[in-house]
Amino acid sequence: MINIINREFENKDLQRKDFLVAFGRRMKQLRHQKGKKFSQEKLSEVSGLHRNYISDAERGTRNVSLVAIFKIIHGLDVTIAEFFAEGFE
Amino acid sequence: MINIINREFENKDLQRKDFLVAFGRRMKQLRHQKGKKFSQEKLSEVSGLHRNYISDAERGTRNVSLVAIFKIIHGLDVTIAEFFAEGFE
Repeated sequence: MINIINREFENKDLQRKDFLVAFGRRMKQLRHQKGKKFSQEKLSEVSGLHRNYISDAERGTRNVSLVAIFKIIHGLDVTIAEFFAEGFE
Repeated sequence: MINIINREFENKDLQRKDFLVAFGRRMKQLRHQKGKKFSQEKLSEVSGLHRNYISDAERGTRNVSLVAIFKIIHGLDVTIAEFFAEGFE
């Protein structure tokens, strides 16, 4: 029984990591769509988030907060609906 | 000049708070759509988030993290795209 519960937890933990990675991938995709010059540095500047926060978030290693998401979407000049459009997950 | 910068900051701060409140309102709306029995207690149970976290998030006083958003949308049984559908902000 314990194995099943552990597997259930491991499975959910994996899904959460996938979600952070998917968020980072989408962030990078939208940043690249703004052109080669729109670097992580530039996004850091326009969003007000530290450069390391941006690179961690894009790598999926940062549990980004709602306020940071607000800053990121405004820095990328997209709506939240566009950011999390169908097929995001 | 300082006033303009302050107003700019105040304005952005207000927008961020509005964003948290909009997130909470959407959470409550989707929870209510699941019927009267789907209380904050029930969402806490199925999402694995503490009851206080749920009520703070619905009131817009919690800077919810991505992993918590993942737990909330799975608890509400909606996709992230459905949660942040057009017209969210």
